[in-house]
Amino acid sequence: MGLSIAWQAALDGVSVTVVDPSPGGGASHAAAGMLAPVSEVAYTEEPLLRLGVDSLARWPAFAARLAEATGHDLDLRAEGTLDVAFDADDLAALHELSTFMAKLDLPVERLTGRECRRLEPMLAPSVRGGVLASGDAWIDPRRVVRALLAALSGLGVPVVRRSVAGLDTGDDGVRGVRLAGDESPATIPARQVVLATGAWSGTLAGVPPEVLPPVRPVKGQIMRLRSPVPVLSRCVRGTVRGSAVYLVPRGDGELVLGATQEELGFDTRVTAGGLWELLRDARELMPGITELEVADVVAGLRPGTPDNLPVIGRSALPGLILATGHHRGGVLLAPLTADLVVRLLAGDTTDDHPCSPSRFKDSRT
Amino acid sequence: MGLSIAWQAALDGVSVTVVDPSPGGGASHAAAGMLAPVSEVAYTEEPLLRLGVDSLARWPAFAARLAEATGHDLDLRAEGTLDVAFDADDLAALHELSTFMAKLDLPVERLTGRECRRLEPMLAPSVRGGVLASGDAWIDPRRVVRALLAALSGLGVPVVRRSVAGLDTGDDGVRGVRLAGDESPATIPARQVVLATGAWSGTLAGVPPEVLPPVRPVKGQIMRLRSPVPVLSRCVRGTVRGSAVYLVPRGDGELVLGATQEELGFDTRVTAGGLWELLRDARELMPGITELEVADVVAGLRPGTPDNLPVIGRSALPGLILATGHHRGGVLLAPLTADLVVRLLAGDTTDDHPCSPSRFKDSRT
Repeated sequence: MGLSIAWQAALDGVSVTVVDPSPGGGASHAAAGMLAPVSEVAYTEEPLLRLGVDSLARWPAFAARLAEATGHDLDLRAEGTLDVAFDADDLAALHELSTFMAKLDLPVERLTGRECRRLEPMLAPSVRGGVLASGDAWIDPRRVVRALLAALSGLGVPVVRRSVAGLDTGDDGVRGVRLAGDESPATIPARQVVLATGAWSGTLAGVPPEVLPPVRPVKGQIMRLRSPVPVLSRCVRGTVRGSAVYLVPRGDGELVLGATQEELGFDTRVTAGGLWELLRDARELMPGITELEVADVVAGLRPGTPDNLPVIGRSALPGLILATGHHRGGVLLAPLTADLVVRLLAGDTTDDHPCSPSRFKDSRT
Repeated sequence: MGLSIAWQAALDGVSVTVVDPSPGGGASHAAAGMLAPVSEVAYTEEPLLRLGVDSLARWPAFAARLAEATGHDLDLRAEGTLDVAFDADDLAALHELSTFMAKLDLPVERLTGRECRRLEPMLAPSVRGGVLASGDAWIDPRRVVRALLAALSGLGVPVVRRSVAGLDTGDDGVRGVRLAGDESPATIPARQVVLATGAWSGTLAGVPPEVLPPVRPVKGQIMRLRSPVPVLSRCVRGTVRGSAVYLVPRGDGELVLGATQEELGFDTRVTAGGLWELLRDARELMPGITELEVADVVAGLRPGTPDNLPVIGRSALPGLILATGHHRGGVLLAPLTADLVVRLLAGDTTDDHPCSPSRFKDSRT
């Protein structure tokens, strides 16, 4: 998120410095990269859906510009998401959801189990049916991060690979960013600071607690498998006995299984139970994964918010802009968030966006 | 195996050179380190059991001498193995086996499910019963490898970290070991060579095929979990719906889950299915593992033989001694094998051992 904003801001002529001890090492490293506002939709989350659809529409141009600037292949694919159901209860829930999607004029199509397997022959015979969200896409977040770093480097944007100790503030608001580390403590002067530290956005020294966003870490574990040949043509999501799982194919034969959702604080341990849950559900949908090599297992922390909407906008501290709380949608929502933040940096003062931090004001008093 | 033999031979005054591109990087790296001849026993495998009991008796002195020579802690523990059954069929099979063990005068004791949980409170309530093999022990094979390397270094034994291209032979038998690598091809002259290359022992250039042992790779996948506190007091083996699994605790809180048995040739990929199988069965015996961190997943290749007995003795090629084919028992059988090979190196010419390579002569013609 921070790198996307920095890149867009730099393109807009803003003087930017990125401070991050490990750029791309947060949730992006564990993200599957689904750009799937439609298949991600849940009842009552229409505002989030609208944001996702808006941001998805910005992705092709964002990705094309990034690829052009860097020569990197981002593995952006747009073959849609196939959402499948394992048992009758899973199917009933999926059909209810597809009715809701259709009412919102989203491009969804109900399929029988046989039709699902015609699209994806590796699916289990037991798959009962599904819904194809043909507008959904996906991308490789690790490639995006590498490309963004290359693009920033190309624009001469400094990336300071150090931790932030806190903000320097005065009566007039933000004055700069204090770097951590005993060897050479330093402050980077800045009148505007964008806080895009994901699950850690709720903790920043030098800022009154009521200014910080109500973000909590939501742990996700993923498993990256490797196949000599691609095993899926599109993203497959599934509900197996009420438990959600997804399988995201990459162009190089990699298959990402994800993801757990765990409320355990700042815990990034890969656990036996997390892997078991992923394998149990993914195997039910696609038994053939058992033959695939395990390339990597990773846990990351999503920045969750009370209403599942991100927090994008000016904070109560002058000069501090928040761009966090994207929960499961950080990759999807990056282009939209970057555009919104660039407008704020340029002086936009409207505050009527559904993601505005001010919506939490009442709950804090 | 090779390092154990080299160490014992060097102590015996033999001039030794170890050639291995990655000492300890073979099956030892993936081994759990159970010294469990009794709980490993299967019907009709009495000769293997006798070897195991013999070698287990040599372990305390072997380990004490190694620890004394190096100051390394090998984490040798002797609290026994608890073999548990998940369902009634598993229990019936376990009881039959315990009757067989008792007939052989092995120290085994039948326990109820409740008695098993009294010994190991983390066991699942569903565990039906078990058998305690109180004489079994276990050790950390990676520590043993590190200690052996230190001991060899202390004795001035060269460890050449290069691959072997083949043997140099003449009319009178072995003349040396040819090293691989274009940069500086070289031959280490030797009138006696011990072939201890595990699953790869069946392939060695410069040796007539009928001289090489009938060894095949048997893949095993393990998972190493990490716990803040020890979760088991002893090794637990189990049979879950006919499928075998073990859990080996280390002093530092590590818990090793193993191991698959797969006949897939020289395939060392960690697979989704392998991890799934381990987690599925281990969870049934000890649900609490789901909370533990995954430290490592590894696959190794055991050297299997047609009769499950190792191949230890002089080959048909003068000067070539075989010490391989230890299958699931390499760690257990290391002290015995080292002692046998040291005797052969010293000129022992008896050939009536059950592990003698000559037992395969007939089947080769």
